[in-house]
Amino acid sequence: MNLLLLLPEDLVAPDRACLAGRRLDHVRTVHRAEVGDDLAVGLLGGRMGRGRVLRLDGDALELALDLDRDPPPKIPLTLVIALPRPKVVNRVVAAATSLGAARIVLINAWKVEKAYWGSPRLAPDSLRHQAILGLEQAGDTVLPDLRLARLFRPFVEQELPALVGEGTGLVAHPRSGGPAPRTMPVPITLAIGPEGGWIDAEFDSLLRAGMRPLDLGPRILRTETALAALVGRLF
Amino acid sequence: MNLLLLLPEDLVAPDRACLAGRRLDHVRTVHRAEVGDDLAVGLLGGRMGRGRVLRLDGDALELALDLDRDPPPKIPLTLVIALPRPKVVNRVVAAATSLGAARIVLINAWKVEKAYWGSPRLAPDSLRHQAILGLEQAGDTVLPDLRLARLFRPFVEQELPALVGEGTGLVAHPRSGGPAPRTMPVPITLAIGPEGGWIDAEFDSLLRAGMRPLDLGPRILRTETALAALVGRLF
Repeated sequence: MNLLLLLPEDLVAPDRACLAGRRLDHVRTVHRAEVGDDLAVGLLGGRMGRGRVLRLDGDALELALDLDRDPPPKIPLTLVIALPRPKVVNRVVAAATSLGAARIVLINAWKVEKAYWGSPRLAPDSLRHQAILGLEQAGDTVLPDLRLARLFRPFVEQELPALVGEGTGLVAHPRSGGPAPRTMPVPITLAIGPEGGWIDAEFDSLLRAGMRPLDLGPRILRTETALAALVGRLF
Repeated sequence: MNLLLLLPEDLVAPDRACLAGRRLDHVRTVHRAEVGDDLAVGLLGGRMGRGRVLRLDGDALELALDLDRDPPPKIPLTLVIALPRPKVVNRVVAAATSLGAARIVLINAWKVEKAYWGSPRLAPDSLRHQAILGLEQAGDTVLPDLRLARLFRPFVEQELPALVGEGTGLVAHPRSGGPAPRTMPVPITLAIGPEGGWIDAEFDSLLRAGMRPLDLGPRILRTETALAALVGRLF
């Protein structure tokens, strides 16, 4: 946790916060903070700065806030990711959030097992929690726009073309073309397939929606590794 | 597992392999292969190709091999990574291997907890297993050169300058300079600090060893996310 993220309900005054639970435990046991210390803090969806510890014990952490700067800007990137295995979803959402993606869409694909969609990890509170962990890691306060597209075709045919818009749409697909370009018009919309890849019909639909194929090279990377490598390359 | 990696002891003839254990289970339960199917296979440290399933049951998987191509080339990259928490070591080694790094050095730093060095995950067999998982993911057969540098100073002062050599040395450090360049002389040696960052004395030592500071931008990334982003950017 590189930023203590405050929720609106933590504010007891405009410049004063009081919190407990997971974040209190973390500040006590990992940061090992003491009264008088300054912590890096941010208000969810708002500004960032310092919080001076006024009180810290087993019940509560109380902070005097000085929020003097804006969070880092989001990168103009929509990630369209075929729903990974439930145990991987958490890492993918946290990693994509930490990288600063503005929007994350988890989408169905032929090779996504149906049972994945029933996972409790897809509950809104669970996804939001993972995104918050990503913000705490990165030092950011603004949640990405995070949504589920349970049906592939309506999303790809009716919504994706508008997302690509005047920017660049890319679909990662092995052996589909040359190496990834290093610069291109933003916003960028990047689709990453399931472990077994997109099937031909899906790949064709994505191309019809305005996406261009993108070859990641001879190695097959895990979803979270591939998206970090692509973000590093493109931004 | 995108490549079934064969060990020398699996070979019962130059073009025939027989194996059991974890890989057998994976082929039966995840790939759900049957006799007559072709699997993507590679020989550890050697060539890659197809393996036709001759026998597949609860006891063994027997394959007829046709290894007709070389593995993808390693990227000319040495990663010098401050030893992460034990639960993170596995992910970092597998991710770095899957990205194709030629060499991985896990190094001590002031903010690495001493206890981490006692973790069973640092046993040679455990590290090698994680690297093998990275090869199986990526579709590669060549293990990276993987080593531990339990002492920071001797490694940085006596070995690092030669690793940097005529190539480029980079040390990731927040707010240390401009954005990462996109191209530079290879081989590249890239140092990534512990969660709390390098202390000043370590950073200075790394600079004296020929490393240049590299700023990853306003967000603080986890080790495995940062290294993937940097590999994506630099190669």
